Amino acid sequence: MRYELYYWSEIQGRGEYVRLALEAAGADYVDVAREKGGEAKLMKLMGSGTTPSFAPPYLKAGKLMIGQTANILLYLGEKEGLAPKTEAGRLWTHQLQLTIADFVVEIHDTHHPVASGLYYEDQKPEAKRRSEDFLEHRAPKYLGYFEAVAKANKPGKGKALVGARLSYADLSLFQIVEGLRYAFPKATAKLEKRVPRVVAIRDSVAALPRIRAYLESPRRIPFNEMGIFRHYPELDSK
Amino acid sequence: MRYELYYWSEIQGRGEYVRLALEAAGADYVDVAREKGGEAKLMKLMGSGTTPSFAPPYLKAGKLMIGQTANILLYLGEKEGLAPKTEAGRLWTHQLQLTIADFVVEIHDTHHPVASGLYYEDQKPEAKRRSEDFLEHRAPKYLGYFEAVAKANKPGKGKALVGARLSYADLSLFQIVEGLRYAFPKATAKLEKRVPRVVAIRDSVAALPRIRAYLESPRRIPFNEMGIFRHYPELDSK
Repeated sequence: MRYELYYWSEIQGRGEYVRLALEAAGADYVDVAREKGGEAKLMKLMGSGTTPSFAPPYLKAGKLMIGQTANILLYLGEKEGLAPKTEAGRLWTHQLQLTIADFVVEIHDTHHPVASGLYYEDQKPEAKRRSEDFLEHRAPKYLGYFEAVAKANKPGKGKALVGARLSYADLSLFQIVEGLRYAFPKATAKLEKRVPRVVAIRDSVAALPRIRAYLESPRRIPFNEMGIFRHYPELDSK
Repeated sequence: MRYELYYWSEIQGRGEYVRLALEAAGADYVDVAREKGGEAKLMKLMGSGTTPSFAPPYLKAGKLMIGQTANILLYLGEKEGLAPKTEAGRLWTHQLQLTIADFVVEIHDTHHPVASGLYYEDQKPEAKRRSEDFLEHRAPKYLGYFEAVAKANKPGKGKALVGARLSYADLSLFQIVEGLRYAFPKATAKLEKRVPRVVAIRDSVAALPRIRAYLESPRRIPFNEMGIFRHYPELDSK
């Protein structure tokens, strides 16, 4: 089966967590909006059918149309072997992914604390305040949580969040670290010293042959100032 | 099996979506933090074990400890008959719940756009800006989405989001309407005129005997200004 991923063509955004899962699994997929005429198809299909999505990404898998990033990963985790097969393991991996999703919202809101529909330039003072709080309190809290999870997961030997094998939660944590490095290079360099296991998971994922090939390919869209992780130097720590 | 729900004792918050599901199912459960010594137990268990939670709510179900509201509902939906049994139906219900979760974040951030750790009083101008955008753009978009979903769901006859029967997503949508009425009474009165099916689902849920009994009981914590839905008149529309 060839999966069809529907997500914006010019950003990593929330679609990237799905792209990383499809790439790590070696799955056959098409990134629809990046094909000719694909953006129109994305907009047309989003609100249609019996399971319309509120927003991209959504995934067509045979007859299923699945929306919400974490929901897509729940599905792919089972079908593509990117999560444990036990009920407890599936729920735990999903719980971690939902916590990553919460983290992603807070990262996005560092540059858009007032309204996602306004430009960054229209909310710069608010963004500065929110970013300071984010870097001082929220980012350390989230990263510290994942560090503790990795530490407690003995089978992972500090290189996986869940069990001994790679899961989609590890792929998503990789993306978080990459994104934070891009958006807040100074603050992230300091934060990383406190979370060696999180960095080790990032390194393990980056070294996976399929992921390495993906990152070097044109399929990986570079970070930019339209996505979730944006580099505005004035929001970084000094 | 007696479930143990762990959530803050003085607010509805995110725990309320779980409470509503447990109540609608007639499940045997204890709201741990509301028992004597329960808050200490909540804090102690949260970070312990092999599946620690980043934040409440979390649910103890036999040997499982499940965190993240939508994840708990995914589990209860299956065990307590609050979601379809098919794969497609389960994923769709979960997708709706995750969209409700996104909505909840945006509702919370109307009064806390800068930092969840600061008081509302420390971010009032920002809260005013964010609330205006929320009431003008975001709330209509979310409610309109759920209205369209209810409309497209023919088996639900305008009284259910998924299929012909009640699901946990309907319970959560009930809570959203109740909360918006409390937080933004003027704006919500106007918004409701555009989403009759959403209001009908709210009414259907409110009329369920178990839910009605719950709402009249002391188990239902009243809305207040510590929770997600807060009534600050200055944030409502005129």
